[in-house]
Amino acid sequence: MSTAVAARSDFPALAAPGFVYLDNASTTQAPLAVIEAIAAFYRNGHANVGRGVYGLAERTTAAYEAARAQVARFLGLRHPSELVFTSGATDAINLVVEGWARRRVTAGSRVLTTVLEHHANLLPWQRLTRQHGARLETIDIDEEGRLDLDDAAAKLPGATVLAVTAISNVLGVRMPLPALAALAREHGVCMVVDAAQAVGHEPVDFAAIGCDFMALSAHKMLGPTGIGVLAARRERLLELEPVRVGGGMVREVAALGSDGPSRWREPPWGLEAGTPHIAGAIGMAAAAEYLAALGLPRIAAAEESLVRALLDGLRELEGIRVLGPGPGAARAGIVSFTFASHHPHDVAGLLGELGVAVRAGHHCAVPLMRHLGAPSTVRVSLGPYNDEGDVTALLAGLRHVTRVLA
Amino acid sequence: MSTAVAARSDFPALAAPGFVYLDNASTTQAPLAVIEAIAAFYRNGHANVGRGVYGLAERTTAAYEAARAQVARFLGLRHPSELVFTSGATDAINLVVEGWARRRVTAGSRVLTTVLEHHANLLPWQRLTRQHGARLETIDIDEEGRLDLDDAAAKLPGATVLAVTAISNVLGVRMPLPALAALAREHGVCMVVDAAQAVGHEPVDFAAIGCDFMALSAHKMLGPTGIGVLAARRERLLELEPVRVGGGMVREVAALGSDGPSRWREPPWGLEAGTPHIAGAIGMAAAAEYLAALGLPRIAAAEESLVRALLDGLRELEGIRVLGPGPGAARAGIVSFTFASHHPHDVAGLLGELGVAVRAGHHCAVPLMRHLGAPSTVRVSLGPYNDEGDVTALLAGLRHVTRVLA
Repeated sequence: MSTAVAARSDFPALAAPGFVYLDNASTTQAPLAVIEAIAAFYRNGHANVGRGVYGLAERTTAAYEAARAQVARFLGLRHPSELVFTSGATDAINLVVEGWARRRVTAGSRVLTTVLEHHANLLPWQRLTRQHGARLETIDIDEEGRLDLDDAAAKLPGATVLAVTAISNVLGVRMPLPALAALAREHGVCMVVDAAQAVGHEPVDFAAIGCDFMALSAHKMLGPTGIGVLAARRERLLELEPVRVGGGMVREVAALGSDGPSRWREPPWGLEAGTPHIAGAIGMAAAAEYLAALGLPRIAAAEESLVRALLDGLRELEGIRVLGPGPGAARAGIVSFTFASHHPHDVAGLLGELGVAVRAGHHCAVPLMRHLGAPSTVRVSLGPYNDEGDVTALLAGLRHVTRVLA
Repeated sequence: MSTAVAARSDFPALAAPGFVYLDNASTTQAPLAVIEAIAAFYRNGHANVGRGVYGLAERTTAAYEAARAQVARFLGLRHPSELVFTSGATDAINLVVEGWARRRVTAGSRVLTTVLEHHANLLPWQRLTRQHGARLETIDIDEEGRLDLDDAAAKLPGATVLAVTAISNVLGVRMPLPALAALAREHGVCMVVDAAQAVGHEPVDFAAIGCDFMALSAHKMLGPTGIGVLAARRERLLELEPVRVGGGMVREVAALGSDGPSRWREPPWGLEAGTPHIAGAIGMAAAAEYLAALGLPRIAAAEESLVRALLDGLRELEGIRVLGPGPGAARAGIVSFTFASHHPHDVAGLLGELGVAVRAGHHCAVPLMRHLGAPSTVRVSLGPYNDEGDVTALLAGLRHVTRVLA
């Protein structure tokens, strides 16, 4: 009995017999609907977006803005204009750091984050605070990675920014975002959420979360590479200075030789310099449509059920250390583990030879690895096309691998 | 008799009978080989790039680096590591401005450019020089847009940067890049070339040009959206500080709470934070392969022949003002014109109704428009799939339109 929400036949990448893809926190496979949306965009012809005066240009602009509206609805934004297309979550977070925080984080400012963050939501803040003589502080977590809300409440007063992941890409622990957002609002702290691991796996409603900025990547939600989103409350978006400037985003160009500044278009267009990744936006919208049709609550429930089976099975393996929380509200579909006597790379390499794709390494979260005292882990991460058979194959593979390595 | 170098049947976007696409300076249509390369990437499955330990991850990384090598060869780079994938030419130029020039252009510094530049190669420099109290100076051009090399030689001594387009996206005038680069080298000036309008239309050999940095976009050379290139001499690349930081580009993460900086990987990888646009890189390589098979000298010769026919035909229209140089070495396949008594938008709009796609507007080159005393022009721009029939259709359309508007 399959528990996969998505039909595997929708995913040509999964057609090879015996191929078990469990590296979804790294990137996800695309359904035919996404592949076809991208191909159709190129096949049907495209112009650039903006003020085209011929039919194809008008259709391309309309398709791009329709993609924006569709992804905005999918993410629970109040209005499509709260959505800036970026080249991915990394680009989106760097845009917040360079375009908003750089003029606000000064000597003595405090930026709060967690030791759980992916480098994308850590290195930009680390560089900025270091350059400006500000402090980068972490909110405590417990042994399973759960955030200490009391510690958050104690540290938030006076902070400038709270940068936090929605779900740890290593431990799979889910952050209490609405509670954190309520605290951040109470203390006037700008809250930036890295939602890369949540979107596509569970309902994510930007307005309900109540944060200021939210970053994500399409390729982690069944969409194409090279495209992502910065979602932002309108008031914050208006405070954001463009990082890249160029064509399509300027309202008034200052005369050469004058001292006057050029003036930008209003967001989101003033923040999207140059020709955007039009095909990517359209492919991302197709992914959003596909996921919405499956139903995000169903996907989340299926992942939770698979995680229970996975955690149960892993616990029976000898010498294993499973990181992160047990099944329940705090645990998403990402599970990391180590073995007392096997190197994660050896485990993942041998699993790979069996056709089971999992990740081994530091998962772009070196500070967390240091915190855990584990230089690397094996990581299994689920997607909507995974089913019980995949978990069974992984567990069988692990039993085999540990015998081989013993 | 067709003079098109590329078979129109390779381009599904051009299949509609009577559709004449002459807005190639804005964006180009993709051949089946590119569309299929992108679709195959997603169909065959993909992992992320980096240190994957299963087969698919290794294949994805190899495909991404093979794409880098292929595009690097296409552009005449000495080594693939001189090529940074960006989200486009705008991103590439902003990377140079923010990652290289920001620490070198100081109060009193001089940045040289031309009045011909697209906003992508103007606004980043304008913002930087204004913020740092530096000077943004332009090298003189003659009435047809030709650069005054004597003026360049006079202004280069003591300048920090020379930022110049390869081909004006409005006038179609070709810059004397090798001569300029020799002057720039002589005076130790860092030369940044916006090659967006040249690549795909004529042979572009980075090493032969001799500049320091070169920016381009794939979607203007039959490739996908959301991907472009910053090419750089190795010495300059090593001087470039990443603008975006995050996953995949870090060598050593400083301990949280320490004062030490994190350290980046060597270029190009240290400059490509986050998951790259893998499908885009592969599509761009397919476009390069397609163009190389056609032969860039053949494409350039065909465009020159079409431009002659176009200029001859335009001259017979009443009340027309054709901008830029006559046919010859200084004229690429972009032609702008105005009418004494018709608004460019009306002309382009009516042409669009006839199925002839041309651009009207300021073409993201407002300073040039001011210089020309024309707030907008009609712009015709060629690609390798255009033939004499397209020029004939355009000229017939223009005769009809001017009669209708008269």
